[in-house]
Amino acid sequence: MATDIIRVEGMSCEHCVKAVTQAVGVLPGVTEATVDLEAGTVAVSYDPAQSSLDNIESAIDEQGYEVIH
Amino acid sequence: MATDIIRVEGMSCEHCVKAVTQAVGVLPGVTEATVDLEAGTVAVSYDPAQSSLDNIESAIDEQGYEVIH
Repeated sequence: MATDIIRVEGMSCEHCVKAVTQAVGVLPGVTEATVDLEAGTVAVSYDPAQSSLDNIESAIDEQGYEVIH
Repeated sequence: MATDIIRVEGMSCEHCVKAVTQAVGVLPGVTEATVDLEAGTVAVSYDPAQSSLDNIESAIDEQGYEVIH
């Protein structure tokens, strides 16, 4: 199990929190996705054998938010 | 038919636009609801015989946004 903190730009309200949490939460192997709106971060716990960090970041990107590297 | 411009605080993203547009758009007699995110306004066209301005403002309030008078 891996846990990563992803920095995300553009999350501004509780609707954004829900959109990102749901998009990441449905990915295979993801056991937890927690958005910190003030910090602009998403903490994700996942099984790297089932979802890669790239997959997770793509799911966030597809919701219209920018992942910061 | 009446058209009013309602000032609303707290709409910050496209999800907010959607939430407010839908909540107002389903009210009886409302023919158009257009959110201007930058201006923080909702323009509403409606039949005052079917929905009052009070009803419309309540619907916005129920979505978690503050109507400014």
